[in-house]
Amino acid sequence: MPSDKPHAASAEQLIRRTEALLHEQIPLTRAMQVRVVRFDDGELELAAPLTVNHNHLGTAFGGSLAAVATLAGYALLWLLVEDPTCHVVIRRSTIQYRHPVRGDIHAVCRQPDAEAVAAFRTHFERTGKARITLPVTIAQDGRTCVEFEGEFVAVR
Amino acid sequence: MPSDKPHAASAEQLIRRTEALLHEQIPLTRAMQVRVVRFDDGELELAAPLTVNHNHLGTAFGGSLAAVATLAGYALLWLLVEDPTCHVVIRRSTIQYRHPVRGDIHAVCRQPDAEAVAAFRTHFERTGKARITLPVTIAQDGRTCVEFEGEFVAVR
Repeated sequence: MPSDKPHAASAEQLIRRTEALLHEQIPLTRAMQVRVVRFDDGELELAAPLTVNHNHLGTAFGGSLAAVATLAGYALLWLLVEDPTCHVVIRRSTIQYRHPVRGDIHAVCRQPDAEAVAAFRTHFERTGKARITLPVTIAQDGRTCVEFEGEFVAVR
Repeated sequence: MPSDKPHAASAEQLIRRTEALLHEQIPLTRAMQVRVVRFDDGELELAAPLTVNHNHLGTAFGGSLAAVATLAGYALLWLLVEDPTCHVVIRRSTIQYRHPVRGDIHAVCRQPDAEAVAAFRTHFERTGKARITLPVTIAQDGRTCVEFEGEFVAVR
């Protein structure tokens, strides 16, 4: 049976390359100890430990949650575009903090449906610029704690 | 002529105490080198250097901008409540990235009008819990680059 998953070795390489890119290009990701955990089944997961990302209440700091969610969007878009000349920027975002995150941060950015991705890619290839809205959730023990939605723009 | 400004020495003490609180309680603020710059005329200003907060394009990282804006809201609310037993949390926020920030980050949280602050304080004193919406702007060379609005809750 054919699989939609990227080839295992190549997926692992993509993950390591993306993490290295984040650490090189955005120094705060090193201080936050952000890791790229997985990229499969149309989802990209980033993680960051609570020890360096907690707030005055010992739960995850809202700014860290917003930053990890933003990074998950950036990283998914880099992986979707697969064009080294492409720049990704964020235009706007909304974030709902529903419940405190009491452990390490795990942010999952879900790739939009195939039709939306195809429309985004076609527009990017034709004009060198395209925008897309990406949802990110941060859950703990099966409960959604944080919901983020960001509008990102890719520019060649 | 009477002045609305807090007494100079006490304002400086408040600033230093707030900065120390941020650095002690939220470790990421040390990595981000966040400073409390001023608290006067109903405005609280935080700053953070570009050198440790830049992104892959050499401009301020969206996650740092969101984090500094969130901190400006927290800090203003701490200063408004003046109750050491009070916890401040963020419920939701929206952020618009209008222009890239090409230098150090300067985030200004403006205190809502006197009526809104009085209503917030009365509700907090009566029920031990109150919410307030706080706007934060990040400008450079007189141009607003980032607009943030956060809903914060103070709980005793």
